[in-house]
Amino acid sequence: MTKQELINNIKRKKSFLCVGLDTDLDKIPEHLLDLEDPIYAFNQAIIEATSDLCVAYKPNIAFYECYGASGWESLRRTFQALPKDCFSIADAKRGDIGNTSSRYAQAFFNAESAGLNFDSITVAPYMGEDSIKPFLDFPGKWAVVLALTSNQGSADFQNFQQGDGKQLFQEVIDKVNTWGTDENLMYVVGATRGEGFLKIRAHAPEHFLLVPGVGAQGGSLSEVCQYGMNKDCGLLVNSTRGIIYASKGKDFAERAREEALVLQQEMEEQLALHGII
Amino acid sequence: MTKQELINNIKRKKSFLCVGLDTDLDKIPEHLLDLEDPIYAFNQAIIEATSDLCVAYKPNIAFYECYGASGWESLRRTFQALPKDCFSIADAKRGDIGNTSSRYAQAFFNAESAGLNFDSITVAPYMGEDSIKPFLDFPGKWAVVLALTSNQGSADFQNFQQGDGKQLFQEVIDKVNTWGTDENLMYVVGATRGEGFLKIRAHAPEHFLLVPGVGAQGGSLSEVCQYGMNKDCGLLVNSTRGIIYASKGKDFAERAREEALVLQQEMEEQLALHGII
Repeated sequence: MTKQELINNIKRKKSFLCVGLDTDLDKIPEHLLDLEDPIYAFNQAIIEATSDLCVAYKPNIAFYECYGASGWESLRRTFQALPKDCFSIADAKRGDIGNTSSRYAQAFFNAESAGLNFDSITVAPYMGEDSIKPFLDFPGKWAVVLALTSNQGSADFQNFQQGDGKQLFQEVIDKVNTWGTDENLMYVVGATRGEGFLKIRAHAPEHFLLVPGVGAQGGSLSEVCQYGMNKDCGLLVNSTRGIIYASKGKDFAERAREEALVLQQEMEEQLALHGII
Repeated sequence: MTKQELINNIKRKKSFLCVGLDTDLDKIPEHLLDLEDPIYAFNQAIIEATSDLCVAYKPNIAFYECYGASGWESLRRTFQALPKDCFSIADAKRGDIGNTSSRYAQAFFNAESAGLNFDSITVAPYMGEDSIKPFLDFPGKWAVVLALTSNQGSADFQNFQQGDGKQLFQEVIDKVNTWGTDENLMYVVGATRGEGFLKIRAHAPEHFLLVPGVGAQGGSLSEVCQYGMNKDCGLLVNSTRGIIYASKGKDFAERAREEALVLQQEMEEQLALHGII
């Protein structure tokens, strides 16, 4: 999906919601557990119930990988169920030396390899240029690079600081910007730090930012928009637990839709407030 | 495997060789490609031919993951074929927020989950403490944390420097050291920079270091030992392409053994030279 197509979808759906598919057998409704592939059945129902309210889906690969080959099969089926008008993000946080990162890119971007053809993958920057470039070599695909994350340990290294005050996450954005463009690079920026977005936008005014941390992780949507939104919206705000685990009963998909609708309506307000729709 | 068991194996086998299993269908002998699971067949033959000469095996997960579910099945079978007296390293370079890293730990450390029960996994430090600790919560398991890697882009961020000259990879070692011990933490340190080991040993005198980059990537074994060896050896030196792709013919396993033997003999000399055997 191109940047312009993503922007068009955001304006048409009046939403910049990304639904996280961190599908956990311990948390999904019990009546699904007897099915052949409960993970896929759950995801399919969630996708069907929410796809007109969101513009992106983000399965976190750990939740599939922990079941080995069968988990990868659930992931492949889930990928097949994603609608074409939703941006797909493999939340894998991969990163290795060049020829190995190429294999990871193949796994997620080449349908003939593992049956997956995601629009994008999340990537860890620690190993530098040759760990990220192989993902950018796929035309039409995106690397979503970890910059300033929302987890407890994010400050341990991401805030490491040069003598002039520049922090590692800023250095990451500045260097990674030279390896691609705002048409094939996004950054992960946690929503738990509204003012952090000012520092990010100073280095990446045009890029889309993938924002986890709204909802269960405690971030405020209006604050994210205040500091992080740009003229194209420039945000994909993820919510996972608040939506997909809204109910553990037979009404799980219906309740997921209700929660997604609440977020979509807040997003519609923000898009109008910022003159985007 | 405990640190003492690893040291005992090194002394008994007179080797600190780790064989990388980055098994690539484009590079393995053609006569294997007709088999049901060529990756496993190749690995099994390599393991059988080299297991008395090495103390560790390291499959790089990207080479399995790129084939999706069937690749994960090849990985599971390969894991089953690893001898108990060899330290097993899942070279996965994973790293995510806490509850997600727990899932990755489960994938590689809990046999009931994905059929894998590796001794250790390589981990990327960018996301900080909660991305690494879940791996340390498994008794008897190890996290092998990326510190100073050997690839082209390693300097991009790993050398990012504080005002006092401290570099990111040193900060990584100092902080990560506080989350575990030399009984459950190792560091990845590239062999292409002999003198880099002095900086590493100043921060991690007792830890084992996993050293890629000897052989095809150009590092010198004697230089690695000169700067990096400690009283317990403290090194696992990896070689992949020089061993597993020594021949593309029917003699591939035999030739792999010959190459592993050359390295084992050099290692035996180094162990003697440093008074370890």
